[in-house]
Amino acid sequence: MKLLFIGDVVGSPGRDMLKEYLPRIKEKYKPHITIVNGENSAGGRGITEKIYREFLEWGAQAVTLGNHAWDNRDIFEFIESAKNLVRPANFPKGTPGEGLKYVRFNQLEVAIINLQGRTFMPPLDDPFEKAEELVEEARRRTPIIFVDFHAEATSEKQALSWFLDGRVSAVIGTHTHVQTADNRILPGGTGYLSDVGMTGPYDGILGMEREAVIHRFLTSLPTRFEVPKEGRTVLSAAILDIDEKSGSCKKIDRILINEDNPFFH
Amino acid sequence: MKLLFIGDVVGSPGRDMLKEYLPRIKEKYKPHITIVNGENSAGGRGITEKIYREFLEWGAQAVTLGNHAWDNRDIFEFIESAKNLVRPANFPKGTPGEGLKYVRFNQLEVAIINLQGRTFMPPLDDPFEKAEELVEEARRRTPIIFVDFHAEATSEKQALSWFLDGRVSAVIGTHTHVQTADNRILPGGTGYLSDVGMTGPYDGILGMEREAVIHRFLTSLPTRFEVPKEGRTVLSAAILDIDEKSGSCKKIDRILINEDNPFFH
Amino acid sequence: MKLLFIGDVVGSPGRDMLKEYLPRIKEKYKPHITIVNGENSAGGRGITEKIYREFLEWGAQAVTLGNHAWDNRDIFEFIESAKNLVRPANFPKGTPGEGLKYVRFNQLEVAIINLQGRTFMPPLDDPFEKAEELVEEARRRTPIIFVDFHAEATSEKQALSWFLDGRVSAVIGTHTHVQTADNRILPGGTGYLSDVGMTGPYDGILGMEREAVIHRFLTSLPTRFEVPKEGRTVLSAAILDIDEKSGSCKKIDRILINEDNPFFH
Amino acid sequence: MKLLFIGDVVGSPGRDMLKEYLPRIKEKYKPHITIVNGENSAGGRGITEKIYREFLEWGAQAVTLGNHAWDNRDIFEFIESAKNLVRPANFPKGTPGEGLKYVRFNQLEVAIINLQGRTFMPPLDDPFEKAEELVEEARRRTPIIFVDFHAEATSEKQALSWFLDGRVSAVIGTHTHVQTADNRILPGGTGYLSDVGMTGPYDGILGMEREAVIHRFLTSLPTRFEVPKEGRTVLSAAILDIDEKSGSCKKIDRILINEDNPFFH
Ligand SMILES: [Fe+2]
Ligand SMILES: [Fe+2]
Ligand SMILES: [Fe+2]
Ligand SMILES: [Fe+2]
Ligand SMILES: [Fe+2]
Ligand SMILES: [Fe+2]
Ligand SMILES: [Fe+2]
Ligand SMILES: [Fe+2]
Repeated sequence: MKLLFIGDVVGSPGRDMLKEYLPRIKEKYKPHITIVNGENSAGGRGITEKIYREFLEWGAQAVTLGNHAWDNRDIFEFIESAKNLVRPANFPKGTPGEGLKYVRFNQLEVAIINLQGRTFMPPLDDPFEKAEELVEEARRRTPIIFVDFHAEATSEKQALSWFLDGRVSAVIGTHTHVQTADNRILPGGTGYLSDVGMTGPYDGILGMEREAVIHRFLTSLPTRFEVPKEGRTVLSAAILDIDEKSGSCKKIDRILINEDNPFFH
Repeated sequence: MKLLFIGDVVGSPGRDMLKEYLPRIKEKYKPHITIVNGENSAGGRGITEKIYREFLEWGAQAVTLGNHAWDNRDIFEFIESAKNLVRPANFPKGTPGEGLKYVRFNQLEVAIINLQGRTFMPPLDDPFEKAEELVEEARRRTPIIFVDFHAEATSEKQALSWFLDGRVSAVIGTHTHVQTADNRILPGGTGYLSDVGMTGPYDGILGMEREAVIHRFLTSLPTRFEVPKEGRTVLSAAILDIDEKSGSCKKIDRILINEDNPFFH
Repeated sequence: MKLLFIGDVVGSPGRDMLKEYLPRIKEKYKPHITIVNGENSAGGRGITEKIYREFLEWGAQAVTLGNHAWDNRDIFEFIESAKNLVRPANFPKGTPGEGLKYVRFNQLEVAIINLQGRTFMPPLDDPFEKAEELVEEARRRTPIIFVDFHAEATSEKQALSWFLDGRVSAVIGTHTHVQTADNRILPGGTGYLSDVGMTGPYDGILGMEREAVIHRFLTSLPTRFEVPKEGRTVLSAAILDIDEKSGSCKKIDRILINEDNPFFH
Repeated sequence: MKLLFIGDVVGSPGRDMLKEYLPRIKEKYKPHITIVNGENSAGGRGITEKIYREFLEWGAQAVTLGNHAWDNRDIFEFIESAKNLVRPANFPKGTPGEGLKYVRFNQLEVAIINLQGRTFMPPLDDPFEKAEELVEEARRRTPIIFVDFHAEATSEKQALSWFLDGRVSAVIGTHTHVQTADNRILPGGTGYLSDVGMTGPYDGILGMEREAVIHRFLTSLPTRFEVPKEGRTVLSAAILDIDEKSGSCKKIDRILINEDNPFFH
């Protein structure tokens, strides 16, 4: 089976890019399951129910999140009823929503796990311990397990992938908003990519207006970052081919669409 | 002119890989100048004079460093006399060595600047202010300016590249040990790559033994990391084509050599 | 001469406490110069021109700041004309305001320096290098030099005090909002206190509503902190006796006023 | 009942100070239980079995630890058999040792809990959740519960104390090595002190040679810190009076002994 994962959609430029290209990408790669990271989809900060529903309408089967999950307070209104929304699993007990969800296609189930790193990020429960627990739980239902590890440090991302190698279909990183070139299949059969990258403004900084970000680096003064309204955009994704019986990843390719890397079909 | 930049060489596996492949890469790409980041070349921590001299013998014209520059105390013995060694420029006044060096080829000079980031890293002088100062100084001698920005955060790396766009030939990141897929030429003509990646063990974590790193994530106990003695290796690099008159980058390509991406010539 | 320093005034409870007690403290200790840290005086975040003027009316001769200096945008309107307002000196060149100001009393001048730490705080210019520069500058005019070191880490605070020992009258820390008990005179004659503490709500957490702060620790969710409107308050200060000729500190005492430590005169 | 708590003993100067003064302090205050934080007792880094046993011989009933617990590898040899040694409870499952121990005196039991903070410190399990669990467990056996919260940030320390107010006898902080002046009894009856301070060199920086620490701040170069062999020393402690029936704290006083604050009896 084929699984498409699209990296952090940032604001309306990211949503527009997704809406335009998702049908064409699906036509080309024919994924059975499409997952979108939506932690920055509402103006760069969080997600709303309207946007979540749009992602599903446009062809996604699940939406993952990250440290910005809670920035738009709309999330607290709809997260409990959003069956295909997955938030980082290692928030404390009692946090609304869940970090492991299942999506069906044909007779199969795909487990989708979202975890958040702790290196250079705020304190949370141990993502390794939580991964151990959830992977064990998921494997009782299906061998096809996808992990979106939302983390900053390459060391933590690589460590989790080796820790889970042979037990999950793929560990793909999000959060840095820059696609890495290290897509590979680990010896145990787990597909890996340190970061899938972002979907949104191509000439911003991590998708935000670059003048403001540079201003903050130059001045150390508080600066409000906004998603630029206009300009070129980028879409970052990964397409995986997973063995339905074993759950092993047979192929993992990167997708990067921007003016420098035009989309061909 | 063509410039080859090879990412963080880690320990003896990295040095062996470099020694074996550098001649072949040079034969294929015919760079005029080759620069190697050597901050992890001595057992993963720092560099020695012997290793520095080997890099030059093997065909490099300059060696850059990073936060690990000072880990092997041998550096303090030879840095002042090492004409082609460049350490992060934004260490405090009085730090041994220099952060801007010039390398000649034919009638031309290439300025090589090494800077270290501050986001998620120890305090240092402002890399933006130091970049401004050194770029201005270098442009009085040559338009061909290469910047190795040794930094953790993608935001800081992107911000510096846009800040310097049009004033330097390239800003290439190091430190995360993972090659990113975002090589591009910014509108002003500056070549950019968030991180060039590392050269060394392919099945370690950032080039160190993965069991030890995973152990630390699982236990939070102090753990000593060593470079694995055996196993597969990777080489990560970038090759740039720079206009000699304007200093603009005309082309920036990634090079990644490992068992999954074999080298062809 | 006697110098009174009052720690971070937090919101209206802090301002009310200051207004009520400053006359009584001045009557008891008879300071020649009173300095107030005002970085949290406007609703916990920053300062306004109105508040700054009130502090002077109520009897302060100077106001120092910290990392929250810029949180209320009013500061950008009046900082350049506020003669007795001192912001952390080690913000980058071009930052509005100044980090060294002089206050006169009788025939004497007191130099007031504000610096911000970097350990566990955002990147800034080196406070040690900036201290060296400003202390040298100030000593050409006066031996009486007061340093408010706004910093988190006890190591950085102690290090700066020993670094400046014998060259300034006092180094007193702010920012942690908790008064330390280590007031002392270093061998070279510099008075030292790691942190003077805060002035404001006594039953909050660092002066903010404790329910919200605890909620954030328990949930890791974004939480808005406000200064509580009602309740008991605390005032934290230090009183120094400084030799006018040498600038040496002869005595440094802590002042702590709250329901558990009532003020007596 | 009276409980004496002595802050982070640093190296041999700290141990010598403890050996000399503990009998005199006990004679003056007559504590029923004495607890010593020993995380820095072996050359500033960790603890050995020999030192642990000495602390008990000299009159302590329990020894607590902190982030430096594991720095001296001797700990792994004896922690499991050391009945009165308490390590931070919120290390991951499977960590050697325990974070809650009971000490008997007369017919009573005192529960001793050690926790480590996460703000500005390495990732660990949630100290608030672990506190909740252990306090509930301990209260089934005794109302007299002492918490050593080894943490950097004043916000986290205050938050934990308010969170546990009325459920434990005292929350006293360690780790910053500077005694704070905020000893108080919270409305629910919990005694609180943000940091008890350290026991060891008085003229070092956090107990280490100050030249080396200043060198690191000035140069950003790697620097080895050692405990100074000679010089003046300080002892920092707190003495609590606890109601044996309710576990409430009736009195909490600071003890600070150094040349500026001589010990009187
Ligand atoms: Fe994101
Ligand atoms: Fe994120
Ligand atoms: Fe490196
Ligand atoms: Fe590095
Ligand atoms: Fe403050
Ligand atoms: Fe502050
Ligand atoms: Fe300690
Ligand atoms: Fe500690």
